[in-house]
Amino acid sequence: MRIESVDMFYLSMPEIEDIGDGSQDACLVRLRAGDYVGWGECESSPLPTIAALVTPWSHSACKPVRDAVLGQRLDDVADIARIAAKVRADSLDLLQADHALSGIEAAMWDLLGKRLSEPVYRLLGYPCAYAKMPYASVLFGDTPQETLEKARQARAQGFRAAKFGWEVFGRGTVAEDADHLVAAREGLGPEGMLLIDAGTVWRDDLEAAAQRIPALQAARVTWLEEPFVSGALREYAALAARCAPVKLAAGEGSHNEYMAYHLIDYGGVGYIQIDVGRIGGIGAAKRVADYAQARGVTYVNHTFTSHLALSASLQPYAGVAQDVLSEYPMELKALAREMTVEHIERDAEGMIHAPDRPGLGMTPNTEALRKYLVDVEIRAKGEVRYRTPEL
Amino acid sequence: MRIESVDMFYLSMPEIEDIGDGSQDACLVRLRAGDYVGWGECESSPLPTIAALVTPWSHSACKPVRDAVLGQRLDDVADIARIAAKVRADSLDLLQADHALSGIEAAMWDLLGKRLSEPVYRLLGYPCAYAKMPYASVLFGDTPQETLEKARQARAQGFRAAKFGWEVFGRGTVAEDADHLVAAREGLGPEGMLLIDAGTVWRDDLEAAAQRIPALQAARVTWLEEPFVSGALREYAALAARCAPVKLAAGEGSHNEYMAYHLIDYGGVGYIQIDVGRIGGIGAAKRVADYAQARGVTYVNHTFTSHLALSASLQPYAGVAQDVLSEYPMELKALAREMTVEHIERDAEGMIHAPDRPGLGMTPNTEALRKYLVDVEIRAKGEVRYRTPEL
Repeated sequence: MRIESVDMFYLSMPEIEDIGDGSQDACLVRLRAGDYVGWGECESSPLPTIAALVTPWSHSACKPVRDAVLGQRLDDVADIARIAAKVRADSLDLLQADHALSGIEAAMWDLLGKRLSEPVYRLLGYPCAYAKMPYASVLFGDTPQETLEKARQARAQGFRAAKFGWEVFGRGTVAEDADHLVAAREGLGPEGMLLIDAGTVWRDDLEAAAQRIPALQAARVTWLEEPFVSGALREYAALAARCAPVKLAAGEGSHNEYMAYHLIDYGGVGYIQIDVGRIGGIGAAKRVADYAQARGVTYVNHTFTSHLALSASLQPYAGVAQDVLSEYPMELKALAREMTVEHIERDAEGMIHAPDRPGLGMTPNTEALRKYLVDVEIRAKGEVRYRTPEL
Repeated sequence: MRIESVDMFYLSMPEIEDIGDGSQDACLVRLRAGDYVGWGECESSPLPTIAALVTPWSHSACKPVRDAVLGQRLDDVADIARIAAKVRADSLDLLQADHALSGIEAAMWDLLGKRLSEPVYRLLGYPCAYAKMPYASVLFGDTPQETLEKARQARAQGFRAAKFGWEVFGRGTVAEDADHLVAAREGLGPEGMLLIDAGTVWRDDLEAAAQRIPALQAARVTWLEEPFVSGALREYAALAARCAPVKLAAGEGSHNEYMAYHLIDYGGVGYIQIDVGRIGGIGAAKRVADYAQARGVTYVNHTFTSHLALSASLQPYAGVAQDVLSEYPMELKALAREMTVEHIERDAEGMIHAPDRPGLGMTPNTEALRKYLVDVEIRAKGEVRYRTPEL
């Protein structure tokens, strides 16, 4: 069968808050081939991603993403890799193409899984999907007291691990950060696994990050995430050498698998965090999972949006028994919550599972989503290049 | 003074050919502050870049580029770095933002140079601009005979160095590539410096590239450019260890300075090639020039478009005496040629110079450009986010 249509939908909450919450809007992808429909999600700014899909040609290595996808044969998993490689080559100089590809590639897996009546993780070669231990992923409170309450809440909800990130952390004094760490540890209890996400706040300032090491160690933090921007590999390596037993985690910014390899090879991270909606899709993420496993680095999904994205993010390492942690967004906006009919809920042991259904196993709730649909129109060169399609 | 407006213009030839010629369209930037106007160029797909400028907010680290620029104070060079850092932080998750920033940043230098009556290279701290030796940058011919003729033409035009790239090279057999290399060397003569650009054709296939080493050595090629995609650092290092005296060149795909550092630190390149219109602008490129100089790596501009872009690309290493080579596009489409009133022509010795005029020293030929102006309109969330401004 051949890919007959590639549609993108810009969905948004009515109001966007100025906080680090990526669930406030979404870029949903719908693919059609034969009698099947596949769905995916780009973890990206929707409007530039749509523009990357439909832009006119610039030259032979700067073409719209849609041109490398429409009409392509999609019969087996090798076709997915072939189409993804074609997108990368034909859109080499179109930076946003990696994010656009990511949702499309996931939708191809979803569609093929439905056609072959197999969950995606089986198409990836995993005989089974292991249960994953979700960690509650939340933003820091504005005050240590708020952070304490958020940690208590995560614990009360039965989470054995929680991550606090962004907002005030790293922007005030070292003592203020330490207060938040003490509060998080207290709220989580002595047994809880505590993870901290600095959200690249120190850019490439090694010493600013290093000043927080004693407080991170005292709070028995398992990982410090994104102290620096993705490219600051020397700073990652230098900090990793100084912060044991705290390990470094990074990788969500990777828009191709090489960037993740670099964090492993040169940056010394202990955890590699991949967002399937950015790295180029499920195939690229699976290659990172293989690479990490061979090098003793733990693979973790990065997911801060819908359960469609969550399902996609679980597939690449579903069959890796020892990589047990999973990011589980806890403060989803209504849009992200309503994205799917099904949800990935914790079982009686507090664990989550990749859906045991064909494809990604998630049905977009198109009726509920219509109220979030953003009306977009892009005209260029005398043509309507894009108009929001029927959802 | 404060930045009052940031305008982007999508310019295009009437027909886009399916060849690796980046001069077929352009994304021109105009900045206004006080009584001054600055101009820059993004080396990028125009429509997604415009979308990155004007897209609605997604969250605190995914905002439109314009929001971090408009209204900012621009009085000295430190302001440029501050604004660029703000764009990077506020648009962290907007991939295309790096390309959008690049032209805006260059326009800030142009504007500030005009206000301070100084060429940009002096604002960068260089007391003078050294003459650079331009190499003719052309595409491979379809046949060795065509390549031979192109090389003869470059020589007849007085070029002492020429680069052949893209198209057939690397796509056929090793013997066919060798024929093109022999032809290029013959046409250029024994004294000419021969450079080869593989245009990432082998992606990360080390052996495919290595098979061409004997022919590259036999043709006394100075550098092999982009055998692999930017991220394939291990493959770069492995090939660099095998291809002496041929050196590797790469870097044009860098959309931040870290990527260039990685090619130097981990990829073993001998030449680092920076496109100011992609890396985040002139400041980021200058940091790479400093970094390369300290490590014995030669800095070269990457420029395949207008002389506005060429001027911007010369500034970051204008004052580095030993880095003498400069890419000089030879097959510019009319749009790129007509972009500026002035042109950077070779002097009697065949050398080129960064303009000794305030800012970038190039005046866009707005009247000539109007016929290339693409009419664009982007609507989202019930508003016109962008409509092609008056040029």
